Amino acid sequence: MAELLLNSNHFKHNLDIITRALNTQKEKIALVLKDNAYGHGIKEIATLAKNYGITNVFVKNEAEALQICNDFEHITAFYGSLSPSSPSNIYQTIHSLNNLKTIDSNRKIELKFNTGMNRNGIECDEIDEAIKIILEKNLKLIGVFSHNGFGDDGGENMHTQYKKFKEIKEHITHLSKTLGFALPRFHLWSSSGALRNSYIEDDLVRIGIASYGYLCADLPIKNELKPIASLWADQISQRNLKAHTHIGYSGAGNLPHDGVLSTYDLGYGDGLFALNERHQGKLTTASGEIILPRMSMDCFFALSHKERICLFDDATQWAEFFQTIPYDILVKLSPNIKRTII
Amino acid sequence: MAELLLNSNHFKHNLDIITRALNTQKEKIALVLKDNAYGHGIKEIATLAKNYGITNVFVKNEAEALQICNDFEHITAFYGSLSPSSPSNIYQTIHSLNNLKTIDSNRKIELKFNTGMNRNGIECDEIDEAIKIILEKNLKLIGVFSHNGFGDDGGENMHTQYKKFKEIKEHITHLSKTLGFALPRFHLWSSSGALRNSYIEDDLVRIGIASYGYLCADLPIKNELKPIASLWADQISQRNLKAHTHIGYSGAGNLPHDGVLSTYDLGYGDGLFALNERHQGKLTTASGEIILPRMSMDCFFALSHKERICLFDDATQWAEFFQTIPYDILVKLSPNIKRTII
Repeated sequence: MAELLLNSNHFKHNLDIITRALNTQKEKIALVLKDNAYGHGIKEIATLAKNYGITNVFVKNEAEALQICNDFEHITAFYGSLSPSSPSNIYQTIHSLNNLKTIDSNRKIELKFNTGMNRNGIECDEIDEAIKIILEKNLKLIGVFSHNGFGDDGGENMHTQYKKFKEIKEHITHLSKTLGFALPRFHLWSSSGALRNSYIEDDLVRIGIASYGYLCADLPIKNELKPIASLWADQISQRNLKAHTHIGYSGAGNLPHDGVLSTYDLGYGDGLFALNERHQGKLTTASGEIILPRMSMDCFFALSHKERICLFDDATQWAEFFQTIPYDILVKLSPNIKRTII
Repeated sequence: MAELLLNSNHFKHNLDIITRALNTQKEKIALVLKDNAYGHGIKEIATLAKNYGITNVFVKNEAEALQICNDFEHITAFYGSLSPSSPSNIYQTIHSLNNLKTIDSNRKIELKFNTGMNRNGIECDEIDEAIKIILEKNLKLIGVFSHNGFGDDGGENMHTQYKKFKEIKEHITHLSKTLGFALPRFHLWSSSGALRNSYIEDDLVRIGIASYGYLCADLPIKNELKPIASLWADQISQRNLKAHTHIGYSGAGNLPHDGVLSTYDLGYGDGLFALNERHQGKLTTASGEIILPRMSMDCFFALSHKERICLFDDATQWAEFFQTIPYDILVKLSPNIKRTII
């Protein structure tokens, strides 16, 4: 049965070097566990994170938060609302003034700002109105944050976002003193942006992809990170075939030479990108066996006789082949694939 | 919260016209529920199928079978093994002689043959050895089947597979009489191949994609099928922006004109194909709103002020845009998206 192996040493190694690179303490490192921990398995990664000493995490929504609510002190759901019975260590993200107007009183929230991505969050000029509603409804403002969408690139746009967030911090800090509400925690940076800095002024830094062993920014630390997941598949059938034998749907694939062809138990229905005959280039397993089109919903072809094969131990190769980013390869891995910590 | 709506009338309509086109009774229609019912939601589709009167289904593996084991008389798991405690209405598919040699005695199985796809299953010249092992181990041979991989194309390859399967049927029927084991059920055809025939000689026909409203074969019935799933997303934020304002990661997207831009709560982490600025052409929602790059893991941009938007009610448009097949669009939809039968 196909299996995603999660290397606990690599995970610890990644968090160690990230913490060191940021010149910080691990208490400042918040882990992003959203989208099933970027496809790795939220429960398994939560276990590793808790053991490492992580106390702050970020998840996609309440359903994810509830799966790990006993493992962490502070859990923020980036999207959606919370049910009235949600545990008190789960916080809702507010993305609009309308969100604030409709949320029940007394809830714990984090306020998200748009600082230049023009994606989610309230505008900088809506601070005063937001704080007014928060105080009127007796909402508990746990955190204030934004997302720097230029961390992979660096440069002026990244710094413009940073400056805007600094102004937001200053303004809310001022309001906190004058209006008498507790100062929230502030956090802007995620993996790439954070690792372009040697010191994090904020209360937290949200580390996602780097903890899983990847970075899209071209920084030296990228080469030190170790992907934690390797994807394994088991043989279904094998047969000896002659060169040019047609295989799969519509006979669209064919063998480059005489040899053993096997099918393995992962396909595009498990979240893999579907290899077909239109794709240019050569896609191989981690150990170099050629993968042949067409991939089926539940299996793929490889020129191998192995009973078990490692499809990839670094999603970068697959991301490059399918012209996407490692996030996209990893996050689509079906939650139904078995996860095992090693 | 994003939601996949499942139209029960469309499902019934599809099965009605498929049954009529095949000149058969619904007892012969077996439903393929594998891979979370091609991404639609296995529990929800199982409910619809049971209500329709379906008694035979095919799933990916034991984990899927266990979710619906009280709903059907006969459930075949296409892949993997079964645990010793598996209910007796769940059957394991055998893909190789080695499978037969290692399976526990007395289990219920279906024997799969390779008739030309060179993918899964045993070879035609392995029948005698297979039956010998089956009888020695007192395995109960429930079914014998193959998969016609040329149904979308028709033509000679499809008929060659059909002829091979007919020979297998005849040989096993002969062995059943001479060796005295119960005659298994036989089934070869799936949606496209089946619908190229006006009469099904086999005991069952396995209907998958057609019941969900799609067909890759260019047959007249294709236009009568109705996609049953429509995918809806809810607004997260909205803002008025000027033409050419940069949006999203790296500011890679930008507005074609002044207008309202909203984010909605579905992204590539929910299984969608990730729209980015490299893609050519225009991708729109079902109601024509333009979707702008880059899609994020948890949200997408659309030129709309709507609170709720239908991303698609026919996966064909998305399949064509991303140069793939509707199966690939549907099956990747995260099982964590809420499913609702309407």
